[in-house]
Amino acid sequence: MRQMVMVGFLQAQNCTQLASSWRHPEARLDFLDVDYFQHIARVLEAGKFQLGFFDDRLAMPDMYGLDHGLIVQNGIRCVKMDPTTILMAMGTATKKLGLGATYSTTYYEPFHVARVFATLDLMTGGRAAWNVVTSVNDGEAHNMGELQHLDHDLRYDRADEFMEVVLGHWDTWDDGSIVCDRERDVFAIPEKVHRLDHEGKFFRSRGPFTVPRSAQGHPVVIQAGSSGRGKRFAARWAELVFVAYPNLAGGKQSYAELKDAIANEGRNPEEVKITTLIWPVTAETRAEAEDKMAVIDKGYRDVDGLSLLSEALNFDFATKAIDDPFTDAELASMTGMHAMRDRVVQVSGKTNPTVRDFLDVTQRGKASHAVVGSAKEIADYMEEWFCAPACDGFVISATHIPGSYEDFVRFVVPELQRRGLYHRDYEGTTLRDNLGLTRPAIGALRRASV
Amino acid sequence: MRQMVMVGFLQAQNCTQLASSWRHPEARLDFLDVDYFQHIARVLEAGKFQLGFFDDRLAMPDMYGLDHGLIVQNGIRCVKMDPTTILMAMGTATKKLGLGATYSTTYYEPFHVARVFATLDLMTGGRAAWNVVTSVNDGEAHNMGELQHLDHDLRYDRADEFMEVVLGHWDTWDDGSIVCDRERDVFAIPEKVHRLDHEGKFFRSRGPFTVPRSAQGHPVVIQAGSSGRGKRFAARWAELVFVAYPNLAGGKQSYAELKDAIANEGRNPEEVKITTLIWPVTAETRAEAEDKMAVIDKGYRDVDGLSLLSEALNFDFATKAIDDPFTDAELASMTGMHAMRDRVVQVSGKTNPTVRDFLDVTQRGKASHAVVGSAKEIADYMEEWFCAPACDGFVISATHIPGSYEDFVRFVVPELQRRGLYHRDYEGTTLRDNLGLTRPAIGALRRASV
Repeated sequence: MRQMVMVGFLQAQNCTQLASSWRHPEARLDFLDVDYFQHIARVLEAGKFQLGFFDDRLAMPDMYGLDHGLIVQNGIRCVKMDPTTILMAMGTATKKLGLGATYSTTYYEPFHVARVFATLDLMTGGRAAWNVVTSVNDGEAHNMGELQHLDHDLRYDRADEFMEVVLGHWDTWDDGSIVCDRERDVFAIPEKVHRLDHEGKFFRSRGPFTVPRSAQGHPVVIQAGSSGRGKRFAARWAELVFVAYPNLAGGKQSYAELKDAIANEGRNPEEVKITTLIWPVTAETRAEAEDKMAVIDKGYRDVDGLSLLSEALNFDFATKAIDDPFTDAELASMTGMHAMRDRVVQVSGKTNPTVRDFLDVTQRGKASHAVVGSAKEIADYMEEWFCAPACDGFVISATHIPGSYEDFVRFVVPELQRRGLYHRDYEGTTLRDNLGLTRPAIGALRRASV
Repeated sequence: MRQMVMVGFLQAQNCTQLASSWRHPEARLDFLDVDYFQHIARVLEAGKFQLGFFDDRLAMPDMYGLDHGLIVQNGIRCVKMDPTTILMAMGTATKKLGLGATYSTTYYEPFHVARVFATLDLMTGGRAAWNVVTSVNDGEAHNMGELQHLDHDLRYDRADEFMEVVLGHWDTWDDGSIVCDRERDVFAIPEKVHRLDHEGKFFRSRGPFTVPRSAQGHPVVIQAGSSGRGKRFAARWAELVFVAYPNLAGGKQSYAELKDAIANEGRNPEEVKITTLIWPVTAETRAEAEDKMAVIDKGYRDVDGLSLLSEALNFDFATKAIDDPFTDAELASMTGMHAMRDRVVQVSGKTNPTVRDFLDVTQRGKASHAVVGSAKEIADYMEEWFCAPACDGFVISATHIPGSYEDFVRFVVPELQRRGLYHRDYEGTTLRDNLGLTRPAIGALRRASV
């Protein structure tokens, strides 16, 4: 029977995806301490999650009013640490949990990204994943030495070539290349280690790469692009896709379209897992869960939503009054997440939506995909989506740490296991084992390029 | 009484600094497994080492004959993993050991380097250090997107500005900025978090930085440059300097000169620890230690030395016969480590030394600073250097893993402790506590730049 993929959505910051989570009365606030993250890892592993993965941004979301003081005062993701470092610490606290992190294709060299994740993959025994993003806003550009960020489609062209280099390097050490034969004085077999010699439009990287293959071949590739160009990118490269489908009917359609797009790329759609975002809020009873949700909602401030909208769309929302419609020119100048902007236009039914429309439609800064209820109700919801099918599994976001994950593991996981929808234990030791993904054949990319 | 600083010199690779170490009959060969590195960390901590630190290179040393097959077959540092990832894994296996890694100023953005090391510093409770290098050869350039590496002095100009940005970002979150006050709805105090707004010749980085200060303020800065320009750089920025003084008289002189140079930069020379390289080979008796050294020497092959010379000097030694003198033009075209080239000219007494002179003088690929003897003899040697003074402590290199460190901790450490030259336990929990370095005042750099 088909089994759900369960992914924890993590942030190396002072709050969860919910910017106001630090205001929650039960939130742990020792987020600068390694134990905070190792505890999350242990909870996810107790719940048999296949993966926990970190988002990333290379700047505070300080475009709103160009005032970082507001961001700092309200704790809106103002702390943002390096996710791969923290991931390694979580890896030493667990044995089976997969470990993913976001690294941008916009500001790093592919050789560096390939090396960091390949190292992580070895040091965790084949449990690493890389979430590929293109960076979205000027704040990141300003920190990383550029005057402004790259245009949307150009970012993806660059990202395509970035993937060729990273996957190319990951494909250069054949299995069994290292022999460590002291008698015959051979460390590794020269013919089994290859140079990449990549020279493209955006990158050049010669090799040979300096990190051998791991138990799972190479890190799993995650992608979350939801614009048209982003979806094509995902269909081409992703092994696990992170989506946030807004409703079941739309989800079912988008899921089918993405699976088709994957097949059209000549890939096996079953080898790409599509996971959709939910924020489960659960307890012994529905009434208790609703009380919990009320506490969570109390933390929200409009500055959270406005700051995070400004960041995501690369547009300063402080320049507009709340009920002013955006002009066509303003909408066109939003160079960040196109899919988000387009959805506001579509859902609001207005060619020129207002600031309030953006807040209402996107629910930015709120637990936008909250599912509130008893274990049975949450499991019903997940079962319906999974069997529609509108997803292959779920990305579980936390309204606060560690309560959200502890509740989910305590209440919902056993219910899903009873229904036979979710594994009772890990299938193997590598992330690919546990996701049901085939180990990539060596030389696959080399042969393809001949 | 003045106490020695003890530093373990680590490599995230298939061998120690000694390329032939994998041939040693007692070498562990599970260097792709996290336990290999965590074991080293535990041994160093048992020996009360203040620090373990990783070198780094972004390429195989494959310039010799432009043939990576030789490098792979002979295991000459052909595996080179990301050191910060492995460092974090070592951090979770220890409580007091300081943890340093090399990252190049040539191929990364300063914001990235600042964030990675600041994260590591928080996640280890204030035990991180960054070894600043400028990258030396074309192999690295070719992997990282460039046609050739930067000219020697230009690398250092860029590195100076790189330091301004990194240290600048590390100085932007005042102590006590985070309050997490839920009652008053204040996460952090806006006036205590500052933007850097750096715009220089090589870099621009705006901020605000996204990682608060750690228990030790910020990571300790290590530097190892030994050319004239490199020494000026170290005098200006380093808090711990890694040197390889060739003999006691020369060491005494260089040590005094470097301390003077530090004072001339307006800094307190006692706040900069100078540590020199040794390879202790020890056992119960001198005879046994000599037997051990014979085993180590047996592993050496000339290809080790020639490959590592080619890499360090960025010159293909396969183009010359062993007894051919280098021409003036060839010597001038060696754009890698100038100090190494200049030393060969000086020690050999030849304006135009041969390949053999380079091998003999540098002892590249061999345990060049081996000290062989009983615990008492090694302690005598170290005491003499330390009291001359020709150093503030030692960088202990390993002829093989884990034997070298296990022997040193078992035999030599207790002898140094008995003599009162080396601490019996850690002074505190942060690396600065244990090195005797002052925690940097916040805003020091901001005030200096007014």
